[in-house]
Amino acid sequence: MNEYVIDVSITPREGLLDPQGKVVLNALRSLDFDEVADVKVGRLIRLRILAPNMEVARERADEMCRRLLANPVTEEYELELENIS
Amino acid sequence: MNEYVIDVSITPREGLLDPQGKVVLNALRSLDFDEVADVKVGRLIRLRILAPNMEVARERADEMCRRLLANPVTEEYELELENIS
Repeated sequence: MNEYVIDVSITPREGLLDPQGKVVLNALRSLDFDEVADVKVGRLIRLRILAPNMEVARERADEMCRRLLANPVTEEYELELENIS
Repeated sequence: MNEYVIDVSITPREGLLDPQGKVVLNALRSLDFDEVADVKVGRLIRLRILAPNMEVARERADEMCRRLLANPVTEEYELELENIS
């Protein structure tokens, strides 16, 4: 078995409202960070899992996202895997 | 000016309590994802900013984290930059 760290980045779907992102954008602008064009606020879930290889690790993490971690209607997610064995 | 997308991954500092992570871990275990050893729940902030080059983009994003986005006492953050011009 190998050990993997998997970063699941969950963001609001393009085109959906992101009120938290709007708040952060306004706060940055009020601090004179005028170069900021857009902000999205999402969630990061960092999993540490055991799996025989990277394909299985990715498949299982994907299943966790579909069954629990992400809301497929309003959110999209990306997986980033690293072997830390 | 170039345009950059910067993913700011904010996680609870090692050793601090992460009650959300604990809840997600328990939920995954109850769905029979027994291979999960640990879960951390953090925030993902995706910035789109204009900057003359990648060094300046990173420096400014780092300043945004220190001044607004992250709590240095309880959280740590990583930056991931991509030039999308």
